[in-house]
Amino acid sequence: MAPSTLTATGRASQVKLMIFDVDGVFTDGGLLFTADGDTMKSFNSLDGHGVKMLHSVGIKTAIITGRESGIVAARARELGLTYLYQGVHDKTLAYADLLKQAKVTSEQCGYMGDDWPDLAVMLKVGFAAAPANAHPEVSARAHWVSEARGGHGAVRGVCDVLLRAQQHYDTLLQRACGD
Amino acid sequence: MAPSTLTATGRASQVKLMIFDVDGVFTDGGLLFTADGDTMKSFNSLDGHGVKMLHSVGIKTAIITGRESGIVAARARELGLTYLYQGVHDKTLAYADLLKQAKVTSEQCGYMGDDWPDLAVMLKVGFAAAPANAHPEVSARAHWVSEARGGHGAVRGVCDVLLRAQQHYDTLLQRACGD
Amino acid sequence: MAPSTLTATGRASQVKLMIFDVDGVFTDGGLLFTADGDTMKSFNSLDGHGVKMLHSVGIKTAIITGRESGIVAARARELGLTYLYQGVHDKTLAYADLLKQAKVTSEQCGYMGDDWPDLAVMLKVGFAAAPANAHPEVSARAHWVSEARGGHGAVRGVCDVLLRAQQHYDTLLQRACGD
Amino acid sequence: MAPSTLTATGRASQVKLMIFDVDGVFTDGGLLFTADGDTMKSFNSLDGHGVKMLHSVGIKTAIITGRESGIVAARARELGLTYLYQGVHDKTLAYADLLKQAKVTSEQCGYMGDDWPDLAVMLKVGFAAAPANAHPEVSARAHWVSEARGGHGAVRGVCDVLLRAQQHYDTLLQRACGD
Repeated sequence: MAPSTLTATGRASQVKLMIFDVDGVFTDGGLLFTADGDTMKSFNSLDGHGVKMLHSVGIKTAIITGRESGIVAARARELGLTYLYQGVHDKTLAYADLLKQAKVTSEQCGYMGDDWPDLAVMLKVGFAAAPANAHPEVSARAHWVSEARGGHGAVRGVCDVLLRAQQHYDTLLQRACGD
Repeated sequence: MAPSTLTATGRASQVKLMIFDVDGVFTDGGLLFTADGDTMKSFNSLDGHGVKMLHSVGIKTAIITGRESGIVAARARELGLTYLYQGVHDKTLAYADLLKQAKVTSEQCGYMGDDWPDLAVMLKVGFAAAPANAHPEVSARAHWVSEARGGHGAVRGVCDVLLRAQQHYDTLLQRACGD
Repeated sequence: MAPSTLTATGRASQVKLMIFDVDGVFTDGGLLFTADGDTMKSFNSLDGHGVKMLHSVGIKTAIITGRESGIVAARARELGLTYLYQGVHDKTLAYADLLKQAKVTSEQCGYMGDDWPDLAVMLKVGFAAAPANAHPEVSARAHWVSEARGGHGAVRGVCDVLLRAQQHYDTLLQRACGD
Repeated sequence: MAPSTLTATGRASQVKLMIFDVDGVFTDGGLLFTADGDTMKSFNSLDGHGVKMLHSVGIKTAIITGRESGIVAARARELGLTYLYQGVHDKTLAYADLLKQAKVTSEQCGYMGDDWPDLAVMLKVGFAAAPANAHPEVSARAHWVSEARGGHGAVRGVCDVLLRAQQHYDTLLQRACGD
């Protein structure tokens, strides 16, 4: 973990790889079940645009999730997420593998999670974020907590923090305004 | 853009074509994914009645959206929306085409959007509106912001503003009351 | 319409037939669309138990809705609703027919609705109710407005009002408690 | 029922079998209907992790629900719930059977429910809990009411209460943190 004297912005300025949990982060935690199991998840359009902006400035993205489904694969493919780890029992193992694959240090990693299985990795990365709906033990250990809930803009919130900290926000905004 | 001294009501009084983004405006931004991609969106019945009232007083309607799906086509068909542009990468190009098709000026156009890809068009139209859940940079540039969220009456809110500004609201209300 | 000096409780005490709109009342107004049109609605379990209690004390129920779908038919069948009118363009016509079918007077009818197409009937019945999410013009004309939103207990709220006004509430509650 | 002088924590400390209603507890009460009836329910990932932690410390779990569907069976199977009673008209009968099957006393049972059909059992168990969205008559009779709504963490809340009362919470949290 980076020295605790760093501010959230200071931490966010170093992130080259932003890692996300899925349920409760990209969604509100809702698992839409039919008799065949969980068949649907509700993602958010604001989050999608945030991820695309991260990619446009060279920040890589990853998902590490405990569940396994074609739903997450479909959304990850659409957003062009750089790395996807599904069906992970111990997230620290996937994280260790990811550091090698992406050739980044812990200080260069961000992680957004909402529940206890996310804690061990959140305590290792340089920048730990949580959505508004995170379990209190998780929020208490995050460097930054979104005002938005998972599935309602929490991911976009963390994207905006990274883009501001790395000085890309104003340029991208001016371009969006057509200037 | 019309002179900035105009009030929101003054701007709304000139609108002959009301343009809407879809995700985050007609919906709460939720993209309901199965393993086959996004297969479902949640629209709102209040919004549907608003759009029908606009048509009843001669105000045309259009959708310009970055995504492409049969879902939006189905809802647009049911509501009888006048123009539908899907899969649009640069909304200013679709907007320029729309001005020609509908034979209206920018001052005669309204636009409701919630995210950065909407900004360039919102800065061109006479009347720019945003739902309660819009990104803060979008709300900050709108002439009118709905108290309702997308998918929960934001579109109906803007319809009511147009109907009031163009003096149709009380007549329609009296008719609904059976007077 | 019954004399305006009657309280909401006084009005509710006379209701023998409770009529409901569907979208925005039994649901939050959400129309879940696939490419094939609206294919799903979210009803609520609290509301279901309320309707069953009305039936248990002899109060009849009806639905009058502008839309037409097998979804509403399926839910109405499960709840054993007494009358079902779908695809109705002018709700006053369905209401006139219903008065004859059910052999009740206007004073003996309640109606819960959320939007302008409900207004004309709401102004005729003895007891007019609205959910928390109703259009402001509708709430303003209701004798009673639920604290709960449609699809989140608004129907149960009005059932409780009827059961209290007609002195069945405490008996049913004691029975539920196993006394 | 255990002596009323016991605190919620004292009651929770004795629970060996935690029983849950489904609609309004594991979900927000939403019954997602197609023309074929209710085909989908929205469960929550936070709740799933809570149930797994109960099992890890030897607390058994059960569902008693009035409705019957393959949806609940699928979720119960995934979570490894110990007992599942569906299509139950009188919950006290299922509860009596459950006491025998699980070889526990009423003082060793907890129950979380949201509506009147849950009341008779809630008045019998040692520890009665309710979600934030429960009917007021149910909340009024619960020993503990969650701040979270059903389907949005209410079940996880009650799991945390049990784990704290039985002194497992801190150990599990430290393990999650990788200590």
